[in-house]
Amino acid sequence: MGRIIVEVMPKPEILDPQGKAVRGALPRQGIETFTDVRQGKRFELTVDGPVSEQALEDAAKAAESVLSNPIIEDVVAVYDAEAGR
Amino acid sequence: MGRIIVEVMPKPEILDPQGKAVRGALPRQGIETFTDVRQGKRFELTVDGPVSEQALEDAAKAAESVLSNPIIEDVVAVYDAEAGR
Repeated sequence: MGRIIVEVMPKPEILDPQGKAVRGALPRQGIETFTDVRQGKRFELTVDGPVSEQALEDAAKAAESVLSNPIIEDVVAVYDAEAGR
Repeated sequence: MGRIIVEVMPKPEILDPQGKAVRGALPRQGIETFTDVRQGKRFELTVDGPVSEQALEDAAKAAESVLSNPIIEDVVAVYDAEAGR
């Protein structure tokens, strides 16, 4: 059983209210270290057997069509979980 | 300016309705490759200057207290974006 990781982030120019909300909560936990926080999505796609080139291509296609909204988001990574980023 | 990546996923035993919804949408795009899809969160935390050990510790603390809900989610990675996973 293989796993493919897909990572999606809001485009830099897009307002990220969730990231801002998280950024605002950190000082209340005594954490002042971070100047900005951006929040995106991380997907784990499971395949039967090992991850093939075709499965990676299908994951990239899924990333652009279903897992992200190309108008406001960028797909920043698609990779075999075993092979690492 | 350094960046720390924090990755959070729903605990395996927790129902993941978003992942199921995505899984159900893929065949409509002609993608039958994936037996399961799980959806989590990916954060980018920005720091002034390079990423220090202290910043990584603060990111791990933030991950457990603000960026995830320990009851239903696991923090699966905290790392310096430059150094990679």
